[in-house]
Amino acid sequence: MVINAMERIMKDLLDEYKNHLQLNCTCNDCLDDILALTLNKTKPRYIAKVEKITYVKAEFIDKQELTSLLVKLAECAKIVSDKPQCQSDKKEVDSNHMSYL
Amino acid sequence: MVINAMERIMKDLLDEYKNHLQLNCTCNDCLDDILALTLNKTKPRYIAKVEKITYVKAEFIDKQELTSLLVKLAECAKIVSDKPQCQSDKKEVDSNHMSYL
Repeated sequence: MVINAMERIMKDLLDEYKNHLQLNCTCNDCLDDILALTLNKTKPRYIAKVEKITYVKAEFIDKQELTSLLVKLAECAKIVSDKPQCQSDKKEVDSNHMSYL
Repeated sequence: MVINAMERIMKDLLDEYKNHLQLNCTCNDCLDDILALTLNKTKPRYIAKVEKITYVKAEFIDKQELTSLLVKLAECAKIVSDKPQCQSDKKEVDSNHMSYL
């Protein structure tokens, strides 16, 4: 089994900062959309052993690295928040809403 | 929950082609190392709904796209195969062996 360490790191960041991102919707679908979009814009850091996640996390103690992740997260939060897909699911399916994934 | 569709696609490719990659070792640790290394060199395609994996898989019906994935897989298989980490775990830990992850 392999794990993208960035998946855990970004999930933790989203949990920590979601109340500061001015989200129109904080349902699980929208949070997952933000996470998926952010991870698509972030270089993956796959590890084959879960213990090694600490090495990757250590890199983001650096304030500059952490800030660049937060900027990506905020940008993606805005994209999802401007057009929440969870609401489009309830209405008619519009393929444009799927364009960001 | 979010999933990197490339993780599934690359895992399937590795399972299909592992006997043609001239691997020195085909233990699970080495296969995971190949997978992790290949995924680190591949643009992630995170999806928030597992049903959407089909859309991503459809892109790789294209022979050229599939070939580029196979080339990456073969390159990473060679790197891992030249220096299998599973054997180094049994010997003394050598940090150079960790350099590719």
